[in-house]
Amino acid sequence: MKVKLLLLSFITILCNFNLNSQSDEDVLKTIYTVSLTNGQSYNWLDYLSNEIGGRLSGSKNAELAVQYTKAELEKLGLDQVWLQPVMVPKWERGEKEMAYFEVSGIANQVNICALGGSIATTEDGISASVIEVKNFEELAALGKNKIKGKIVFYNRAMQADLISTFNAYGGCVDQRYAGALEAGKYGAVGVIVRSMNLRQDDYPHTGSMSYGELTLEQRIPSAAISTNDADVLSKALKQNENLLFYFKQSCKQFDDVQSYNVIGEITGNEFPNEYIVVGGHLDSWDLGDGAHDDGAGVVQSMDVLRLLKESGIKPKRSIRVVLFMNEENGLRGATEYAKVAKEKNENHIFALESDSGGFTPRGFSFAANDTNFNQVLGWKALFKPYLIHYFEKGGSGADVGPLKSETNVLAGLRPDSQRYFDHHHASNDTFEHVNKRELELGAATMTALVFLFDKYGVNPVPKSTKIKN
Amino acid sequence: MKVKLLLLSFITILCNFNLNSQSDEDVLKTIYTVSLTNGQSYNWLDYLSNEIGGRLSGSKNAELAVQYTKAELEKLGLDQVWLQPVMVPKWERGEKEMAYFEVSGIANQVNICALGGSIATTEDGISASVIEVKNFEELAALGKNKIKGKIVFYNRAMQADLISTFNAYGGCVDQRYAGALEAGKYGAVGVIVRSMNLRQDDYPHTGSMSYGELTLEQRIPSAAISTNDADVLSKALKQNENLLFYFKQSCKQFDDVQSYNVIGEITGNEFPNEYIVVGGHLDSWDLGDGAHDDGAGVVQSMDVLRLLKESGIKPKRSIRVVLFMNEENGLRGATEYAKVAKEKNENHIFALESDSGGFTPRGFSFAANDTNFNQVLGWKALFKPYLIHYFEKGGSGADVGPLKSETNVLAGLRPDSQRYFDHHHASNDTFEHVNKRELELGAATMTALVFLFDKYGVNPVPKSTKIKN
Repeated sequence: MKVKLLLLSFITILCNFNLNSQSDEDVLKTIYTVSLTNGQSYNWLDYLSNEIGGRLSGSKNAELAVQYTKAELEKLGLDQVWLQPVMVPKWERGEKEMAYFEVSGIANQVNICALGGSIATTEDGISASVIEVKNFEELAALGKNKIKGKIVFYNRAMQADLISTFNAYGGCVDQRYAGALEAGKYGAVGVIVRSMNLRQDDYPHTGSMSYGELTLEQRIPSAAISTNDADVLSKALKQNENLLFYFKQSCKQFDDVQSYNVIGEITGNEFPNEYIVVGGHLDSWDLGDGAHDDGAGVVQSMDVLRLLKESGIKPKRSIRVVLFMNEENGLRGATEYAKVAKEKNENHIFALESDSGGFTPRGFSFAANDTNFNQVLGWKALFKPYLIHYFEKGGSGADVGPLKSETNVLAGLRPDSQRYFDHHHASNDTFEHVNKRELELGAATMTALVFLFDKYGVNPVPKSTKIKN
Repeated sequence: MKVKLLLLSFITILCNFNLNSQSDEDVLKTIYTVSLTNGQSYNWLDYLSNEIGGRLSGSKNAELAVQYTKAELEKLGLDQVWLQPVMVPKWERGEKEMAYFEVSGIANQVNICALGGSIATTEDGISASVIEVKNFEELAALGKNKIKGKIVFYNRAMQADLISTFNAYGGCVDQRYAGALEAGKYGAVGVIVRSMNLRQDDYPHTGSMSYGELTLEQRIPSAAISTNDADVLSKALKQNENLLFYFKQSCKQFDDVQSYNVIGEITGNEFPNEYIVVGGHLDSWDLGDGAHDDGAGVVQSMDVLRLLKESGIKPKRSIRVVLFMNEENGLRGATEYAKVAKEKNENHIFALESDSGGFTPRGFSFAANDTNFNQVLGWKALFKPYLIHYFEKGGSGADVGPLKSETNVLAGLRPDSQRYFDHHHASNDTFEHVNKRELELGAATMTALVFLFDKYGVNPVPKSTKIKN
């Protein structure tokens, strides 16, 4: 171990002396080596996941996560570490939900969980017959007469033949987010949604939902059911369309509470007023410990600043790590950060988010104009030794999104997506499903891109040029 | 479900009518869609892993696996299915091993397992002091005087900064394979090897070892120790270099027994005498259920032939699935298959192996001459929608290796390697660590490449041309 530390000190010293003369290839090699042999992300994630756990906005755990990450950032010798206040919603699940359906007087228990933001059932729960639909068009076609007084069961499965599981998620998540809003209009008494999961298993997956402009009377309790139980229920309905479904949940919305974004900065030594942000969201859902969503993005982002320092890189521009609060059910942290940045007229040239799990990184998607995107494509070959190959235009991340300008670049880390929705928002989003090397490769890949944007900047586009996004 | 089946039948019928007029892009799309929506590989793997389990050559389970896979191939309506006899070694682990080291009269238990092919200790076990080395050079420098009567502890860790974990494995596995052979020469009484695992955990990882030309007296028992316990032992040795290490194992080598390669064939309708092989190895180590190594390769290879049929592809050339027996500790099946192919003068133009785990496929490595490799590079863009990007020259697979000729092409599927050695040859190489979609993406990727080689063939090189491999 001592030899390892000596070696690392030696590497660091060497880097400090020679970084300016080092090729980009050599700098990337150093970054990946330091992350894989002396990364900190996995240890931080262990603490966040196993010592703190699920970190829903407004919870005690979210507060502990703020304190912990701030204290850890302070140990890194950054130029500034601070908390940015933001008010966040507070919703609590309450007692564990229960649900069953009855056929011939026999109760078949099924696995459900309340969706985030849902109201509770009455204390005795709800019992009603069920109407299964695949989408809002089917719902509208059925109309008020057939829906009133019933539980609407949305059972459209994620599309398995899409290679990106995020596309499959995007094609289904309206059921979860707006299912109660739509069904409530027709007088339904509750909503059960097939979990956003490509795998057949017993885990119900929570996630945000909204009642939109529904009146209080129109709001109905909404829960997710596991994929296995969705199939069981669907099959039972085919045999007995009048079966009764019972569920009970005691979740509750409270007043907003004070919380914080956690921010650390290395101030640039040449262009301190140009900002680069790297971040993830500190809050998570409450069922698991939020290791993939988004503990991974948090610890990777923290390690980006540390890896820059450990690799002997002295940034020209100001590099900030931002741990956003309340991505899951409000985006209040992201909104606040962007608002303050605008008020202060801070020039954010590049912002990178990791919020797609801690799996093997495959590349990035970019929101950028053509000039800047072409610059990025010029860097692609540097990443080949690390099997980073995906450089495409597309979305970035929910938290960095509000920072978009005409000339800056936003990006999202794109890890392998195949396993992500096995765990997303469910009680099995836990530390043991994160692989240390995969996490560290992600941190290194992010650091490498931050290094390149810091070194080369972005290309301001003349105002007369038409931007093609 | 019925709708799904109808839809698939419709796709199949459509393909049968239109395949010749379909673009390669469309054929690949069909292959991936069928694999992800109607793949069979995961169900087969479930049976192989959970109903049969670990399948060490010569064991009852290996025999069951031969019967099962033959029966399943027979259900696919191939043109031929047969068993190819081959004699294989038989080694049994016997009772669970035990080991501890003593410090101040207190025993610290550690997790070990006998290496495949090792002899047993005496019935009472072995107790001796320990000498820790990193490699054979250190061993040679110590010499007979310092080694005689001791247990040699090889503790060189896999190199974490290598991106391909297979390269890290290649840099360490000599300790396991030849550790006892080298230490035996100097009169050591036993060998303990750090497990070939990049993760810190409690699983010992077995694997093949050889005594080479050592006399019976020079042969010493050899076992692997978990990475956690290797560190514990190393630390304890620094505090007390005279501590006594005890281990006991009762493994045994038997006479060779009869076994089989399992082979299925779709006979080509244009060039039936040109053969394409796709395969994996049916045997596995005994500690886990061999789901990744190499149950995944077996079921993916089986599904290649099924996916060709389901996608409506009528191969021009003869496509064989070969489930090789005894890759792990003898390579007898591969040797026999190549021998028979040579005797029959069968022209194997392309052979593809999957033996790197059932993880998300990233591409292939190829053993090919430049002409054929360039043809492959011309297909690369077809794979981009499936995030298959790795097309490099390199090794193929142990089982297909003996089929190499001047003009043919060998290839190995290259899945993401980061998690592979967490499970390799250990009791946690089990079904639940294989993701259904990742497995199915691998099967589709293999099928796509087989389709292209079947359609376009390989380029024979004039004998006068110098081959640059």
